Amino acid sequence: MISKPKIKFIRSLEMKKFRNESACFLAEGNKLVADILPSFDCECLIAKSSWLATQGDIHAKELIVAEENDIEKASLLKTPQDVIAIFRQPEYQLDKKNLKEDLSLVLDGIQDPGNLGTIIRLADWFGIKTIICSPDTADVYNPKTVQATMGAIAHVRVFYTPLVDFLKEMQDIPIYGTFLDGKNIYREQLSATGLIVMGNEGKGISPSVKKGISHKLYIPNYPPDTVSTESLNVAVATAVTCAEFRRKQTYQT
Amino acid sequence: MISKPKIKFIRSLEMKKFRNESACFLAEGNKLVADILPSFDCECLIAKSSWLATQGDIHAKELIVAEENDIEKASLLKTPQDVIAIFRQPEYQLDKKNLKEDLSLVLDGIQDPGNLGTIIRLADWFGIKTIICSPDTADVYNPKTVQATMGAIAHVRVFYTPLVDFLKEMQDIPIYGTFLDGKNIYREQLSATGLIVMGNEGKGISPSVKKGISHKLYIPNYPPDTVSTESLNVAVATAVTCAEFRRKQTYQT
Repeated sequence: MISKPKIKFIRSLEMKKFRNESACFLAEGNKLVADILPSFDCECLIAKSSWLATQGDIHAKELIVAEENDIEKASLLKTPQDVIAIFRQPEYQLDKKNLKEDLSLVLDGIQDPGNLGTIIRLADWFGIKTIICSPDTADVYNPKTVQATMGAIAHVRVFYTPLVDFLKEMQDIPIYGTFLDGKNIYREQLSATGLIVMGNEGKGISPSVKKGISHKLYIPNYPPDTVSTESLNVAVATAVTCAEFRRKQTYQT
Repeated sequence: MISKPKIKFIRSLEMKKFRNESACFLAEGNKLVADILPSFDCECLIAKSSWLATQGDIHAKELIVAEENDIEKASLLKTPQDVIAIFRQPEYQLDKKNLKEDLSLVLDGIQDPGNLGTIIRLADWFGIKTIICSPDTADVYNPKTVQATMGAIAHVRVFYTPLVDFLKEMQDIPIYGTFLDGKNIYREQLSATGLIVMGNEGKGISPSVKKGISHKLYIPNYPPDTVSTESLNVAVATAVTCAEFRRKQTYQT
């Protein structure tokens, strides 16, 4: 049995205002919650006994063993699963010194929470540990973002800061961005350290952020040297870019 | 003014059953409709006069000049735009001979219409003109798929056929698939012609389809030779794979 105020609180976490007020976020789903449970402080775990039986020791401030219809009442998913967890938002410190010895992503105004989650997931795959977002980028703790990360939210640290000033402080490392008039990514030298800036779904990188970019790249379409009126989804473009950075670093002969 | 039966018909196109019965599909949005209007037979175009003023000659069996509130009533979008179009589903013929001289995608049970749309969009970018889907793959004419293609639905032909028999007929060309135990894609020779099979979001490529695959590939994570429990979103994996095929074909030194 889940109390009505608890259900109300869970459902309030769909909105950024209430996430900020409580400094909590929501995760749902058998695999997702199991994957990230060791990485975040759990304020409240609501689960079927069958799911709990598949887990080892569980650390949660509050544990509610629930029935299917309880979970359905609280869930934000179309197809609720066996567990809902409320986690405390971690407090990370952005270490700009470390950043200069690593490869990181910068997101300028990504709007769609699903795109952000997919980018966090692929960042994890390609060994990128830090993502710096403009303040108007989608919220990492939006339940849709958390879901799309498929657990990678536990391995990638996401920060929000005004990008123009941030890029000014980073001018001593290469700052890459993808543009339609950039240089062919396959023909360029790519650094093992630096920042890769990706822009908004519709508008790309904003003019003020563009000024901070030292290396403009382009993902060529095929056949080469044909003009395309099309573009790539931002998560797809991020993936192809990160893959090429890591390939050059690792497999280039 | 849009009649009630017309609104009902438009909204019915959200469901595959009614799309199949009418052989129609829906597209919404100022840029999307403008982009694909020349490529499909338009049964009915509902638009604000302001949008129509931005277009040249329009060929549509029925043209309804509508007000904002009319469009809101008919739209499936959260934020309706200025135009809704009902198109006839094209009747393409799958030419297996041509397929053997090209690089094409095969999708085995992709569930999410957004993923399918994103894959169609990136296929277009990478010059892939044909996608063959298992019958249980999401419907290309689902409005969410159409939306996610961002117009690429006009350039890429999507077919549905049982894959096991289809792959048997294609055994004389290389058939690639991505697997966690495949060979490093960066270290393999990749053919300029052939099929690339991508699997379901959760389960990957099904066992019966796997038997038809001649070359198993793997997209390495980073750092290399670390074991990852994570995976890539299917559209992201498709993008990295297609990019690498095209890179090898074009830029390999």
